[in-house]
Amino acid sequence: MNIQYMRRALHLAKKGEGYTNPNPLVGAVLVRNDRIIGEGYHEAYGANHAEINAMLHATEDVRGADLYVTLEPCSHYGKTPPCAQAILNKGIKRVIVAAADPNPLVSGSGIALLWENGVEVITGVLEDESRRLNEIFFKYITTGIPFCILKTAMSLDGKIATRTGDSQWITGESARKQVHLLRHRAACVMTGVGTVLSDDPLLTTRLPGKKGKDAVRVIVDSSARIPLDAKVLNPDSDAPTILAVTEKAKNKKIEELEQKGVKIIVTPLTESGVDLAFLMKKLGEEGLDSVLLEGGSKLNDSALRQGIVDKVNFFIAPIILGGGTAKTAVGGRGVDFLKDAFPLRNLRTKRIGGDMMIEGYVGTGEGTPCSQD
Amino acid sequence: MNIQYMRRALHLAKKGEGYTNPNPLVGAVLVRNDRIIGEGYHEAYGANHAEINAMLHATEDVRGADLYVTLEPCSHYGKTPPCAQAILNKGIKRVIVAAADPNPLVSGSGIALLWENGVEVITGVLEDESRRLNEIFFKYITTGIPFCILKTAMSLDGKIATRTGDSQWITGESARKQVHLLRHRAACVMTGVGTVLSDDPLLTTRLPGKKGKDAVRVIVDSSARIPLDAKVLNPDSDAPTILAVTEKAKNKKIEELEQKGVKIIVTPLTESGVDLAFLMKKLGEEGLDSVLLEGGSKLNDSALRQGIVDKVNFFIAPIILGGGTAKTAVGGRGVDFLKDAFPLRNLRTKRIGGDMMIEGYVGTGEGTPCSQD
Repeated sequence: MNIQYMRRALHLAKKGEGYTNPNPLVGAVLVRNDRIIGEGYHEAYGANHAEINAMLHATEDVRGADLYVTLEPCSHYGKTPPCAQAILNKGIKRVIVAAADPNPLVSGSGIALLWENGVEVITGVLEDESRRLNEIFFKYITTGIPFCILKTAMSLDGKIATRTGDSQWITGESARKQVHLLRHRAACVMTGVGTVLSDDPLLTTRLPGKKGKDAVRVIVDSSARIPLDAKVLNPDSDAPTILAVTEKAKNKKIEELEQKGVKIIVTPLTESGVDLAFLMKKLGEEGLDSVLLEGGSKLNDSALRQGIVDKVNFFIAPIILGGGTAKTAVGGRGVDFLKDAFPLRNLRTKRIGGDMMIEGYVGTGEGTPCSQD
Repeated sequence: MNIQYMRRALHLAKKGEGYTNPNPLVGAVLVRNDRIIGEGYHEAYGANHAEINAMLHATEDVRGADLYVTLEPCSHYGKTPPCAQAILNKGIKRVIVAAADPNPLVSGSGIALLWENGVEVITGVLEDESRRLNEIFFKYITTGIPFCILKTAMSLDGKIATRTGDSQWITGESARKQVHLLRHRAACVMTGVGTVLSDDPLLTTRLPGKKGKDAVRVIVDSSARIPLDAKVLNPDSDAPTILAVTEKAKNKKIEELEQKGVKIIVTPLTESGVDLAFLMKKLGEEGLDSVLLEGGSKLNDSALRQGIVDKVNFFIAPIILGGGTAKTAVGGRGVDFLKDAFPLRNLRTKRIGGDMMIEGYVGTGEGTPCSQD
């Protein structure tokens, strides 16, 4: 067993980012005599699983080889036949697995099938890396609720605009490119009608030199105030737009929006408007496994207080703006006392061009508050 | 020449932190045949210079040895006789210097004296490290204005309190200890009367297991609103308290304060109250080389807008507080447009216990916006 091959498999898995949702990212490497004889990854939803691709691309007979795979091979018939059976059929001798599949339809039965048929199985190799790579899948497959990343771009003192509302652009080009990569990876990109009214964004994915995948655009708009000519309703994009409204929205406006092809989701009315937890459940039912939340000050606050945020990506520009009335990354009502603060864990800092990005997970789960020295 | 000895000299120099102001931190190591035969550092203002201590502590005759010293040896009579002459008298063969002394009374003449008398001199070895270690000295000796560090403790979303004013404590114990170390190193610690009224802080230095040096306490209080029983006016401390006021302060209150031993500095009245640039100049004239600004939201903004801040230390807790009306690290008026933002450079991130600390320099000087990957 050589951990380098699992690293290679994880590297291959990443190539599927943006195309496999709601399936996981999986990579596989076939090795014999310390030589790679085949590799593959899950390239797109509905396409071959990684293990099958590695066997298809093998340059020689795979009988007796080792298979490194980042997620437990499946044992059930889904869009494709079970991989565990194919592994047995091909005479693979040993299977090295990073993480067990959290999918209740698999959950150890793929590994069991291999064991029972005399294949040696080693598990837990680079498990953390594999789980982190598939954090979206791990949440969605076990809860049916999309994984939500709150993304914001602010000054070091937490402002997303100056007191006069000047906000474009706080962060530099590299950070903005990174945001398009986040959109490409996400099933949905969500914002509030406030941002639509002030910035009129497209919310499509623009990647340099690569055709990115547009995410489903989700606009939180309790009273359906969105103008019919908003760019987000009229983009040059295959991905649909969803408008989340409440009973406060007028029927006539809803009809006009539906005629434009906008999908409407009506949620219960909460104190802060749209019921975001209800909305997330509905999005999950549509097969949407992840949401990139690019909200304004108020929506970010509502999202945190309604408990829908799993992860934060704070892009921080090396500037200070000041201003007691300047909008902050998370505004709205906020918490009353420090004991009610939203805790973050596993904070990491990255440099993105001239900016900094701090990412972390919401809640007091496993891990340390701050993983970076 | 071996760079490790200069690292050792820098390490020794740091031991003087808090005790040498307004003198620089300097360390020295004597080396012969790749063996340290003496070392020393500048231990306190008025005490021996580092080079002299290294020679005094030498375990054998220093004739013919190499001297590693973090700052150019002085050539003038100050509190002590010139070190360059002592180096010549002792027959040191070679002197390795990290940084030239920016003091106009020295500025290359120490190096010149050595050269002219046949001592080999190598300069610029770990120069950046030495300059950074003495950033306070480098500014103060050349401008007469104290070096100012703005320190704040906030949530990741930039809040220093919840909307109800709950602020103690946002950061953890390690971060708070670090603040006491910053106070120990600074000549003054400055805050506004608003913070005195809301938190009634002591502003003394409490270090575990070590007698810290209290900084001079400077309170910015345009109208002299401070209560006579404020803790900051009645601490168990040898360091004095200075109150910076304007013409708006009543004579009677000023007399009462002076009777308590408070030193009053009257500054011109500006739009935001006390003229901070004027105040800094006055503090510099008192021989105070550095200010740790522990201000609230408004004072931090005024300090940045009046251009007195050299460096920022943002302690960031792994929490989000939210709240459109919650106080932020830099409030007040702020800037109107992004083009007017206060730029930061050489940002670095450190982990402090469960918190994070981002430090950087204000302005577009040398260096990159973000020095950390």
